[in-house]
Amino acid sequence: MSMTTGVHALVRRTHEERVLAALRAHGALSRGELARRVGLSRTTLSEITANLLQRGAIIVADTDAATRAGSGRPAERLALDPDSGQFLGVDFGHRRVHVAVADASHEIIAQGVERYDDDPPWAERLEIAFDLIDRLSRDTGVHFGALQSIGIGVPGPYTGARAGTPAVSWKNQLAPDGVDLAFAERFGAPVVVDNNTRLAALAEAISRPDAVDNLIYLRLSDGVGGGLVVSGRLVTGSRGFAGELGHVTANPSGAPCRCGKRGCLETIASVPSILRACSEAGADVENLADLAAAVAKGDPAVDAVLREVGSTVGRVLGAAAMTLNPREVVIGGEIVRIAPVLVEQAAATLRYELYSIPSDQPHIVRAAQLRDSDGALGAIAAIFHQSPLLAGYPDPTASVENAPQQRSAL
Amino acid sequence: MSMTTGVHALVRRTHEERVLAALRAHGALSRGELARRVGLSRTTLSEITANLLQRGAIIVADTDAATRAGSGRPAERLALDPDSGQFLGVDFGHRRVHVAVADASHEIIAQGVERYDDDPPWAERLEIAFDLIDRLSRDTGVHFGALQSIGIGVPGPYTGARAGTPAVSWKNQLAPDGVDLAFAERFGAPVVVDNNTRLAALAEAISRPDAVDNLIYLRLSDGVGGGLVVSGRLVTGSRGFAGELGHVTANPSGAPCRCGKRGCLETIASVPSILRACSEAGADVENLADLAAAVAKGDPAVDAVLREVGSTVGRVLGAAAMTLNPREVVIGGEIVRIAPVLVEQAAATLRYELYSIPSDQPHIVRAAQLRDSDGALGAIAAIFHQSPLLAGYPDPTASVENAPQQRSAL
Repeated sequence: MSMTTGVHALVRRTHEERVLAALRAHGALSRGELARRVGLSRTTLSEITANLLQRGAIIVADTDAATRAGSGRPAERLALDPDSGQFLGVDFGHRRVHVAVADASHEIIAQGVERYDDDPPWAERLEIAFDLIDRLSRDTGVHFGALQSIGIGVPGPYTGARAGTPAVSWKNQLAPDGVDLAFAERFGAPVVVDNNTRLAALAEAISRPDAVDNLIYLRLSDGVGGGLVVSGRLVTGSRGFAGELGHVTANPSGAPCRCGKRGCLETIASVPSILRACSEAGADVENLADLAAAVAKGDPAVDAVLREVGSTVGRVLGAAAMTLNPREVVIGGEIVRIAPVLVEQAAATLRYELYSIPSDQPHIVRAAQLRDSDGALGAIAAIFHQSPLLAGYPDPTASVENAPQQRSAL
Repeated sequence: MSMTTGVHALVRRTHEERVLAALRAHGALSRGELARRVGLSRTTLSEITANLLQRGAIIVADTDAATRAGSGRPAERLALDPDSGQFLGVDFGHRRVHVAVADASHEIIAQGVERYDDDPPWAERLEIAFDLIDRLSRDTGVHFGALQSIGIGVPGPYTGARAGTPAVSWKNQLAPDGVDLAFAERFGAPVVVDNNTRLAALAEAISRPDAVDNLIYLRLSDGVGGGLVVSGRLVTGSRGFAGELGHVTANPSGAPCRCGKRGCLETIASVPSILRACSEAGADVENLADLAAAVAKGDPAVDAVLREVGSTVGRVLGAAAMTLNPREVVIGGEIVRIAPVLVEQAAATLRYELYSIPSDQPHIVRAAQLRDSDGALGAIAAIFHQSPLLAGYPDPTASVENAPQQRSAL
């Protein structure tokens, strides 16, 4: 082989790798988008993709007709061969586990949910999850022949500390130590574990056409939690507790919180706290369905409670946003769909709190795009780690020493 | 040259580069520290350093006798040849400019201050700074023959936006557009500009023997500002306003703030606000010297004001720390030296606010190590960019396209 041929082959392989990496990170892309992302001319790119198509490494997935702005002929979108890799996402909640499987082109090809009693032991949750995955595989024909990695969301703070560091105990709940190893042993793939609210923040950040590199995410649910994306990175904090917005003091003389303080945001803006406040205001509201009905009929007492809660949420988010200057603030949890006034009021309060910060984006607050039941999609987002957003996120293939937040059993 | 020799030479050069990079990033280090940082055996390292010493690329700076823990023979500390590079740091305040020059071994070899009237136009400040640098050079013999880069701190938010983006105007104060170009043209070296409070946060983070990768810095001065180091990176936020802790609302019904809101932390914890509160409490306190005298005699009215302010500072820092889970919270400004009770009270309040977060560090709050007058040291910290802390900080030698926060005129 002549020197020139050798160099050409090397350059071509480098180009091919960049094209494959872009498709791995972004799913299906048109040739134009691909050329822009990998920095190649259209001509060079066409040569590369023709070769990859011929070898079956990539396929024509669809056209961009559905999402295309303007007129003109729709462009083909290229994607990795879907069979060339699978990604498994698992989200453990307090009362259910959600599993989703994505293929190499980032399509979700199977998902399912299994409920369990409140906070069962982790050994039991694992069995339930494994059974669910087996059943999904049987029912849908999904296989894990080329499983790339596994993302797992767990409730509560997660520091990823293991060797030599005792598991962190918080609010009397033991960290799910061993979950990663159990999955890694069963599936023989690298595992990333993180707090599921933090993973939801990441999923929201990369759910936008142009990924958001500075985002604050707050989830209102049985508890109140949060997650931060700062400078394009998911933030864990020094001990894994970053984003604990639910335990920011909102009212120093407020109600006792399960954490031992008083007036934490969670005592005001969690779903149980909101339902209780509605009842105390005289509304007949015991659950989210009742709340939806009260909102639908325009119950003024419920509206007042929701505005008051929204205002408190806006103040706490205001302090966080003055600290971090995010591009977006996202509020998640089923309640934001049921009670949009809560998000509207939080947005109004936040606008005041950020009054002194010039912005070309007057409306930075939005409701989350993903639902609580989509938890496993956040875990999958974490393992699509080639996303530019994840530059600083632990690479699931890296060694344990370099990446304390994740562990590979391989 | 045989293949083996070629590879050996390449390996040796790689090792040499890592040793030089470590000395560039950390200043003087003993051979033991060097071996640990670059991951070489003591034997290999000794060969490398012997060669570098022989060639004059590095020197024996001193021994670690002064800082050494335990007994044993003091170890020599190696450093880059001081003459092999200079770093220029400039800090523009509202009423003075501070200039410092460091050599390649990170020693400050010259510094000076020049005062000016309140907020003169930038053209005037530049002239004053250039004159000061010329005078320093004349008086101390410091030359800029191998100037590596220039770090510049400016008051107010700094986004680094230039081409196509209008300079940000904030609180009616124009961003110091053009300062970077003026320095780059005069000195022919790459320039990094950032907000000076943010640079102070960075300087505090790297001032510790083991650099702190998660830190919240708050400065109490004529105004109140802050800076954040998150996951080892200095945070700018989406528009350059991250760290504006002075304009977090501390009391919604408080005094009007210059920013247009009410009860911002600045209306309570800035030096003028604190002096005013002391006067209103009946103390004869007009300036920091009066305050120092009142503290020295134990004036109970002044003590009460300082504790109240410390408590408010602690609450605002508590919200920020629940959000970011930092390893350290640092409070700076001359007032923290004059009134240590303020920091003590803030620490006590913060301890309560973080009650629910397990920590092996009960005391994460400390007073800043650097004084306000040390501003240029923060700017110099920013250009010692090989520090691991600065992995994500714009490289002053990188191209403009890749690094929006900095611009090189070269």
